[in-house]
Order: sequence, then structure tokens, then C-alpha cells
Amino acid sequence: MRRIVFVLVAVVALASVLAYMAGALAQADGDATPIFGVKIPSGYRDWKLISVAHEEGNLNDLRAILGNEIAIKAYREGKLPFPDGTIIARLAWSHVPSEENNKVFGREQSFVAGPPTNVQFMVKDSRKYASTGGWGFAQFDSGKPASEAVHNNCFSCHEPVKARDFVFTRYAP
Amino acid sequence: MRRIVFVLVAVVALASVLAYMAGALAQADGDATPIFGVKIPSGYRDWKLISVAHEEGNLNDLRAILGNEIAIKAYREGKLPFPDGTIIARLAWSHVPSEENNKVFGREQSFVAGPPTNVQFMVKDSRKYASTGGWGFAQFDSGKPASEAVHNNCFSCHEPVKARDFVFTRYAP
Repeated sequence: MRRIVFVLVAVVALASVLAYMAGALAQADGDATPIFGVKIPSGYRDWKLISVAHEEGNLNDLRAILGNEIAIKAYREGKLPFPDGTIIARLAWSHVPSEENNKVFGREQSFVAGPPTNVQFMVKDSRKYASTGGWGFAQFDSGKPASEAVHNNCFSCHEPVKARDFVFTRYAP
Repeated sequence: MRRIVFVLVAVVALASVLAYMAGALAQADGDATPIFGVKIPSGYRDWKLISVAHEEGNLNDLRAILGNEIAIKAYREGKLPFPDGTIIARLAWSHVPSEENNKVFGREQSFVAGPPTNVQFMVKDSRKYASTGGWGFAQFDSGKPASEAVHNNCFSCHEPVKARDFVFTRYAP
């Protein structure tokens, strides 16, 4: 009995360590962005929803803003600034009409997510990114880091919302 | 040592049982909808994202469509019909302009999630809901079930997409 219990505990402990290591090892995929050196965080497509948005004009997209567990916790607690380890993901897809839905509604009113446009991330690391409000910014087009020119614009665009720790998106109730 | 190990294992086992029971007991909240008897599934706000959408016209909303684990798995595997236990949640918020964002973009183009409008669910139970394609439909306004009249319209609206098991939303890549 004693041996069985010991083996059981050892197996659980080992499994926990392996799970933790797997998580640590798989935290990022692919190439890093210029300037900020951010890689695509693995599993971000499964993160919890912060909010949705829609940009007209040249962007013409529908957006979902997702957050890792640290981000979601900070949002729900209204905690500012966001703690180190926060990652916010902004996914976007073309804003395309749905003929199928319009037929059901009986008028042209329905828009759905078309092909993906790009994905952006904000990664909080107050030391590493001290010169840009504690945030590393990243944009990926079809899984590849966008240019240095693109990344040069991130922080200046986010500066107007310094009072909310440079984050535009509010949590959707 | 033996006693400590035993207590440890017992504590872990008890915690697991309690966590399981808490999950089982908290599967639904509040009042049930007319016709289909669906309650708000607990924790749906944390479910994974299927897609986003935008309705103009009277609805004038931004939408997020989320799914429980069974739904997400079926979507990703392209499995039709959806298996019993699938729940799809459609959240919606007023489509409101963001003056804050527009200032940054330098033009009127940005819309964000305003106050929530209503939440809808599709619950797959092929026996219980055999007469409506295997789906129970639910709408909640401010957490309260919508009227019987509202629920009478659900299935007829979803019939045109019978080929996709009565589900409009496609998974956003």
C-alpha cells in the first residue's frame, strides 16, 4: 500500500512538472517581430474574449480582442496598470456581407468574418519594454512578422490612451 | 511519512471530487426559457471564440459567437451534425462609434461593443429536441428568458441552413 501510494504521488508530481514544462516550452511560435522581438503566443486562438470591434474605411474588418489569463483577470478586477505577463491579442477578419444570412433577414444587413487580415499582440513586460509604456507590440500578417516600419507606429498610436495603460479595448460586459 | 502521504492523496482526491461536483451543480443559472427549457449555461462568457459578426438595421449590433468544448472540437474537426452536448452562444452588444478611436485614426471609422443587447444559445440534444432539428433555442434579455413568441421563431429562421445542422456561424480561421 505504502509503495502504491508513493508511486501514485510520484506520477502525479511528474505529470504536473511535465505539463508545466510543456507550457513553458510552447509559449511562442515562429519568427519574432522587429523592434520588440515578440513571437506568436501559442494557443492564443483559445483565449477568452475581451470584446469585439469593427473598423470601416481601408481596414474594413471585424475584430475579436482576446486575452490570456493574466489579462482577463486584470480586466475583470479593473486592475491598472496591467501586470507583467499580460498578453492581449487582436484578431481581425475582412468584414464581408453574408448573402445567406441576408436572405433569412429579408434585407442586406448581415456581415460576417471573411478571410483573416492580420493579428496583433500587446505583451506586458515593464522592464524589457520600459521605453514603450511597458508594452511590446506585434503584428503578424499570415503568420509572419510585419515590417519594422509597421512596428514603429504602434506605441505612438497607443499613447492617447495612456490613462488606461495604453490599451484601447474595454471589457465587454 | 506514510500517514502524510496518505493525507496528501486523500486531500487531492477530495479536492477533485469537490471540483467535479461544483462543475456538475453549476451547469446552468436562472430561469429556463419557454418551449425549450434552456437555462443560461454557467461560464459561457469564458468559452472559446467561434467567430464574430455584425448586423446592421434594427439590430445594429456587434456579435461574438462562442462555443463550449464539444462545439469547438466539432467545428475544428468539421464534424456534422454537431454531437449532443454542443452549446453555441451568441453574445451581442450595441454597435457604437468610438470617438476615442476615431481621434487616433483621424476619421470616423471605429465601432466598439456598447451595452449588451441579448444572448442566445443553441443546445444540442437530439432526443429532447427531435422536433426542432435536435436543437433547443434560447434567448435571454438582461439575464431573463425572452417570450414564448420570440422562441417560436427560432427554428424556422434556422431551417435554411439545415445542411450545416441549422447553424449559421462558420468557424473563423
